[in-house]
Amino acid sequence: MTDIAALKAALGDVKTEDNPAIVKQKSRDFFWYSPVLKRQLDHVTADLVVSPKSEAEVIHVLKTCFGLGVPVTPRGAGTGNYGQAMPLAGGVVLNLAEMNKVKAIKRGSVVAEAGAVLAKIDEETKPGGQELRLRPSTYHTATIGGFIAGGSGGIGSIRWGGLRNIGNVLGLRVVTMEENPRVLDLHGRDLMKVMHAYGTNGIITEVEMPLDASYDWVDVIVGFNDYMQAVRFADQIANEDGLVFKEISTVAAPAPHDYFLRHKKFLKPEHSVALLMVAPHAIEPLMTLAGEARAKVLFRSDTASAEERKGLPPLFELTWNHTTLRGLRVDPTITYLQVLYPFPDHVAKVETMTRIFGDEVPGHLEFQRFDGKVCCSGLPIVRFTTEERLDEIVRIHEENGCPIFNPHRYTLEEGGMKRTDAVQLAFKREADPKGLLNPGKMIAWENPDYDWKSDKVYLFPGLQAAE
Amino acid sequence: MTDIAALKAALGDVKTEDNPAIVKQKSRDFFWYSPVLKRQLDHVTADLVVSPKSEAEVIHVLKTCFGLGVPVTPRGAGTGNYGQAMPLAGGVVLNLAEMNKVKAIKRGSVVAEAGAVLAKIDEETKPGGQELRLRPSTYHTATIGGFIAGGSGGIGSIRWGGLRNIGNVLGLRVVTMEENPRVLDLHGRDLMKVMHAYGTNGIITEVEMPLDASYDWVDVIVGFNDYMQAVRFADQIANEDGLVFKEISTVAAPAPHDYFLRHKKFLKPEHSVALLMVAPHAIEPLMTLAGEARAKVLFRSDTASAEERKGLPPLFELTWNHTTLRGLRVDPTITYLQVLYPFPDHVAKVETMTRIFGDEVPGHLEFQRFDGKVCCSGLPIVRFTTEERLDEIVRIHEENGCPIFNPHRYTLEEGGMKRTDAVQLAFKREADPKGLLNPGKMIAWENPDYDWKSDKVYLFPGLQAAE
Repeated sequence: MTDIAALKAALGDVKTEDNPAIVKQKSRDFFWYSPVLKRQLDHVTADLVVSPKSEAEVIHVLKTCFGLGVPVTPRGAGTGNYGQAMPLAGGVVLNLAEMNKVKAIKRGSVVAEAGAVLAKIDEETKPGGQELRLRPSTYHTATIGGFIAGGSGGIGSIRWGGLRNIGNVLGLRVVTMEENPRVLDLHGRDLMKVMHAYGTNGIITEVEMPLDASYDWVDVIVGFNDYMQAVRFADQIANEDGLVFKEISTVAAPAPHDYFLRHKKFLKPEHSVALLMVAPHAIEPLMTLAGEARAKVLFRSDTASAEERKGLPPLFELTWNHTTLRGLRVDPTITYLQVLYPFPDHVAKVETMTRIFGDEVPGHLEFQRFDGKVCCSGLPIVRFTTEERLDEIVRIHEENGCPIFNPHRYTLEEGGMKRTDAVQLAFKREADPKGLLNPGKMIAWENPDYDWKSDKVYLFPGLQAAE
Repeated sequence: MTDIAALKAALGDVKTEDNPAIVKQKSRDFFWYSPVLKRQLDHVTADLVVSPKSEAEVIHVLKTCFGLGVPVTPRGAGTGNYGQAMPLAGGVVLNLAEMNKVKAIKRGSVVAEAGAVLAKIDEETKPGGQELRLRPSTYHTATIGGFIAGGSGGIGSIRWGGLRNIGNVLGLRVVTMEENPRVLDLHGRDLMKVMHAYGTNGIITEVEMPLDASYDWVDVIVGFNDYMQAVRFADQIANEDGLVFKEISTVAAPAPHDYFLRHKKFLKPEHSVALLMVAPHAIEPLMTLAGEARAKVLFRSDTASAEERKGLPPLFELTWNHTTLRGLRVDPTITYLQVLYPFPDHVAKVETMTRIFGDEVPGHLEFQRFDGKVCCSGLPIVRFTTEERLDEIVRIHEENGCPIFNPHRYTLEEGGMKRTDAVQLAFKREADPKGLLNPGKMIAWENPDYDWKSDKVYLFPGLQAAE
């Protein structure tokens, strides 16, 4: 149990918050998307929220908590949905949102503090004709540090692949949790030590990210009466090398009409859709292709009237995890999965899954580049019945060659590659020798003897008990 | 035989040139790359060079020549090497180089007159952070109209595919050759009517081209002692979605050392190389990958001293047809081919051809996107012996699944897909009813009964006789 008074005293001038309601709020992310995580983690809360304003303050906090043996779980904006930012063993939530300055804009890259919100970074780079390559659908609230520590790629990945791809993150400054915390400047392959590690082995304080040409993206919705036609059209245009897209997504009927409430006026229940963000100079060729595919153009932000556009969210807030979010608002009983349909059989695999599950698992695909080729991942909606059936749906996908990145697990490994990441584990030994950073998220650290072939769900023994 | 005096009189104020030496010079392109075309076309010359300064003058020239029955062959800068711009039946060479204004720069596109030199267009767009996506290695001399009428893609195609891909040309203004010439604004699929048609069915006067983010591209040469290592490295980095390249090429030893005279100080005879143009913010990740591949970094323009850089041409002037050009300057007996190594077996096919031909056909690859996938085309050097052996080399490539685009033929079809382009033929019927535009280049027009299965080389009956 953390001695909060002693901790606050030791932290000195660093801003803290111990109001239990606020602490609980800052201890949560979008874990409740998953009925499984909701059951497991709903009670989790930190003891104290600490909000450093500088790297020096981060160092001071980590040194202090190291000395007192207090766990530290870093947080950006809490927009993850794997419980990434949830302090399973209590202690400190290290809120980095107040370290949010854009420090330098160069030709092709930007340097920002970890707590900078992605949309705010773009606000500063856009006057120079540049913007971030990749963004989550929580672009308007998520922080760049949280995106790198807990995200995968999202919007923009149709052009750039994922954050994991070399070149999509250029530099990270990381503070270690030791008696005397070190500040490391990571580049090249060393970046992989801390990327998508949920802050389990270092605190990211500053990032350098590549930039691309910025455009006033045109939101386009095209509709088909058959979902596979939408999928094939999306795959076709994604392979058109002369077109520039920021986003290509498909959602099967009736989800668009049922869940996209503000866009409902453009949609019919039978419409399966492709959701597109298109550079303005690619609109005309896209319309040529849409015509050839007999797609119905249901919405174009560049030709819609002011009246039609009124109150509409940007199209990217219908995609990725926002698709699920909008579904949950209409029907709280649904949940979702994350599926990879690997190249080159991705379209055929989507067709197989669509045939097997029908309306129990309405399709939602995100097209992206993966090692140079276009393929797609899915975030299909699941009409949830039982955890057993959910596990069965996972199994059927995997038996059909569609790996699942399970969003109903809070550990790095179970939500990811289902094996030890030796690089991240080794770096944790070095950077967090007491195991105080975001405890319970890296199985390889918590239980070196864990049986990866086991079907059992990992349960962190240090998870705080529900009251 | 053209009545030059009558023609000049009818042309009025339009600028003309009839000095035979200058007319002959303006009637030639880089056809002499090919020993076959050299033999066939060396004597070809127009009667008159006409240099309009406006679209109105183009209309006047075409109307006048239509009335007099004078053939018209359009010319940009004459940098093609298929004899594209050579007036096989004499008549007028329509020199468009004096119509060279950049008319509008938008976010994502530029509008320019057909005779604008590519590098000059970029000089005007770069202050706004934009540049043309695609360029030939003759960037500093070629015109945008000539590139579209006679080129395929070139530098930039590793990112954007070819000119043929929808979105890589946005608009064309075209003047027809009729009693009353029409001006057509072509968009979408209609662009295909005149793209890569050698000006046989209309005169391009104005273009709209898409732009991309401009960078101060870093020239990089990495070396390997084994050619296939260079090929595999090029293929690997071309598939890295997070890196930004303008150019990825490979050239087999000993050609780099033997032919790249100004770069010779960086090269050894045993060096097979990858030639790269890299965005500055992609250099660090590229160096990580080069290190992992144990590539020798032989040259980097961003770290070379002023002394080392002195007198060096830009790296792109070692690539595409400039590779051959530099070879020809050292050894006039060589020639070359153009080969497609289709995805997904492109690397294996390169290996097979390398094994079969060895130093008779030293490898030269250009990596590019083709319908969404990375593959490569080759412009291998051929140590020329006889036309029969050259045809045999072509045949062996094709038998091994590597189509040849034969640069030793002056017709659209023989240098291309070896079949009628029905769209271009139909448009020629409409836009050039007398068949006066660039005669002899479209077999489908000249000889509707041509046997495409025939092994015989097409010979244009109207080709002017050698004196």
